[in-house]
Amino acid sequence: MTTHRIEALADGIFAIAMTLMVLNLALPEAGKGAAELHSLLIGQLDKFLGYAVSFVLLAVFWIRHHEQSHFVKRTDRKHLWINIIFLMFVALVPFSTSLVGDYPDEAVAEVFFGFNIFVLGALLLCNWAYATNHCRLVDLSLDPRRVTLDKRKGAIIPIVAVLAMGLSFINPDMSSYAYLLIPAFQGVFRYRQRRMTGGTV
Amino acid sequence: MTTHRIEALADGIFAIAMTLMVLNLALPEAGKGAAELHSLLIGQLDKFLGYAVSFVLLAVFWIRHHEQSHFVKRTDRKHLWINIIFLMFVALVPFSTSLVGDYPDEAVAEVFFGFNIFVLGALLLCNWAYATNHCRLVDLSLDPRRVTLDKRKGAIIPIVAVLAMGLSFINPDMSSYAYLLIPAFQGVFRYRQRRMTGGTV
Amino acid sequence: MTTHRIEALADGIFAIAMTLMVLNLALPEAGKGAAELHSLLIGQLDKFLGYAVSFVLLAVFWIRHHEQSHFVKRTDRKHLWINIIFLMFVALVPFSTSLVGDYPDEAVAEVFFGFNIFVLGALLLCNWAYATNHCRLVDLSLDPRRVTLDKRKGAIIPIVAVLAMGLSFINPDMSSYAYLLIPAFQGVFRYRQRRMTGGTV
Amino acid sequence: MTTHRIEALADGIFAIAMTLMVLNLALPEAGKGAAELHSLLIGQLDKFLGYAVSFVLLAVFWIRHHEQSHFVKRTDRKHLWINIIFLMFVALVPFSTSLVGDYPDEAVAEVFFGFNIFVLGALLLCNWAYATNHCRLVDLSLDPRRVTLDKRKGAIIPIVAVLAMGLSFINPDMSSYAYLLIPAFQGVFRYRQRRMTGGTV
Repeated sequence: MTTHRIEALADGIFAIAMTLMVLNLALPEAGKGAAELHSLLIGQLDKFLGYAVSFVLLAVFWIRHHEQSHFVKRTDRKHLWINIIFLMFVALVPFSTSLVGDYPDEAVAEVFFGFNIFVLGALLLCNWAYATNHCRLVDLSLDPRRVTLDKRKGAIIPIVAVLAMGLSFINPDMSSYAYLLIPAFQGVFRYRQRRMTGGTV
Repeated sequence: MTTHRIEALADGIFAIAMTLMVLNLALPEAGKGAAELHSLLIGQLDKFLGYAVSFVLLAVFWIRHHEQSHFVKRTDRKHLWINIIFLMFVALVPFSTSLVGDYPDEAVAEVFFGFNIFVLGALLLCNWAYATNHCRLVDLSLDPRRVTLDKRKGAIIPIVAVLAMGLSFINPDMSSYAYLLIPAFQGVFRYRQRRMTGGTV
Repeated sequence: MTTHRIEALADGIFAIAMTLMVLNLALPEAGKGAAELHSLLIGQLDKFLGYAVSFVLLAVFWIRHHEQSHFVKRTDRKHLWINIIFLMFVALVPFSTSLVGDYPDEAVAEVFFGFNIFVLGALLLCNWAYATNHCRLVDLSLDPRRVTLDKRKGAIIPIVAVLAMGLSFINPDMSSYAYLLIPAFQGVFRYRQRRMTGGTV
Repeated sequence: MTTHRIEALADGIFAIAMTLMVLNLALPEAGKGAAELHSLLIGQLDKFLGYAVSFVLLAVFWIRHHEQSHFVKRTDRKHLWINIIFLMFVALVPFSTSLVGDYPDEAVAEVFFGFNIFVLGALLLCNWAYATNHCRLVDLSLDPRRVTLDKRKGAIIPIVAVLAMGLSFINPDMSSYAYLLIPAFQGVFRYRQRRMTGGTV
């Protein structure tokens, strides 16, 4: 089992999860008039935004997963299973997204979604910590400052997910927008990382 | 993150979007007789044509995306995100197609579909302009005439989409057929391109 | 655009079409008892067989497609579009299969399914004839006897599909089993091919 | 036809089957209140566990399939078709899983699921026996002790599936948990295997 095979399975599951979410956009019943269709589409605006947020979050996870895979040169049983459980929660995202779309005003739905994102972020952090601990699965030449920065950067997602879960009890509608903090925070870290290690992309 | 990985994700999302559209062909209820089945299938002729048009359009986008990727040798954050947003609208095509299939007489549905195609065409053009500007992500040896011709060729899709959206207010039924202008116009450009640059395929 | 990219898209669409068919196996409603579940599953035996037949047919097409791709070294616009239309009908197979499963006694459903298989077989034959005509896309060293034998072998699928469509007017139930002639006939041809050209697999 | 192509199709079918299972998690109807949503999610706990068990089992099959492919250097018609029938039952797992989720108290559902897992395990064992018999498709240098150990290890899955099917007549609820014996037993074998052959992963 090479890391290449895990990446192939991951690419497949990410692509399917990202595309399946479109099935959540409930199709208005056929046979109604233009006015009904118009209001149905407007009424689904929340779902379209939820689809976009989840698509972008999955893309963030996909990018982070590949960035880590780039440095991971070997694999073992534990690393393999961390990745499989990670992919299990990737495949769950379309369900979580549909839950938030169907129950936009319920904290329970937002907490379910937030928990899904939290687990994904935590497993990705766990994956990086396991692979880099004593250079277990990475090259010895990997800059330790990069490892540390990437761990801190990896903590952004779980922390924002906890914040969004908390916010959902106060204002469920606003909770989804909290996830937009993830790309914002990551941009700041990337800026610092580039200055410290001179790395590109 | 290499361009190879983006292509792998793109191949997956295109393949799934193209295949998922078949779920839009509503299955007639079981237990009815031969006459009903016959008329149900005839009544779905519009949906079959819509499926074929969307499949062909997605194939056109897939070909154009790969043609661009062939010349793009590097990637950066902005290029990556242009591609991800592009794929988000690729995954939306099955929904847009089903909307037109369920509401063949409504301009709203045709405008939604046309807007989806317009955004896809605009993002592909944007992708090419970003990558080739000052040879940012392409080889310096790339013929500037080819870049210019490809930009003009890339403008066909958004322009036809705007035309089709306009036509949908006059005659929604005819609107879908307007997209057949895309392969026709592209053929003319390819002919000129071959004469100018001597390029193949 | 290389043949490698077409194969990647083909692999994706084949994999999804083969897996999507399982959605046609109608899920019995929850909450019923053991006896109902038992009879529901027995009542679906036809659908299970139809799923198996379609899966095997898609596998036959997938194998033939790859066997041809092995010899096709170049590609051009026409070859590309023959392949895309071929994949469009691959993606249609889950719908055709569900039609036969829902209407096992109707000739209309069997004819629809047979037509789908006929078009797939004809396009594959067309693909091979186009690629090998004057060695357009294959190596000059390709044995012309192999080309001829492969064309004859490729004619099996459309011919059997026509037979099955004819049979469906006499006995719709038996029609599906006619497709089992495809692997049988192909086995005979493979035996002769091996004797004539000494080829393996 | 190379083993590489079979692996690409297998990766695709595994990825889709693993992700499609999430569609089985029935979406609670929109418009209900927080209390109903809460109880709906709690009431689905069985389905979430079933989803997790099936995901892990598919991952176990995916790992075993790749481990075998690593040693299989050639392919022939019979090997190809063993793999295709194997993939046919992989694609059936989402249906079997939904059956158990919808009928948690029925032995019939558990037997159907167990039979699916049994066939998968038997075909994988059959695949290994066929490929290694007289070193038909593997290198002559492959350690015969490894072949024997892998056959014994491969027998774990069918045996556990038969046990789980038997248990389902006594206690359908407990039956699903029997499959957790598979990773446990495999761990023991892996430990012995590593001691005997010094192999890694």
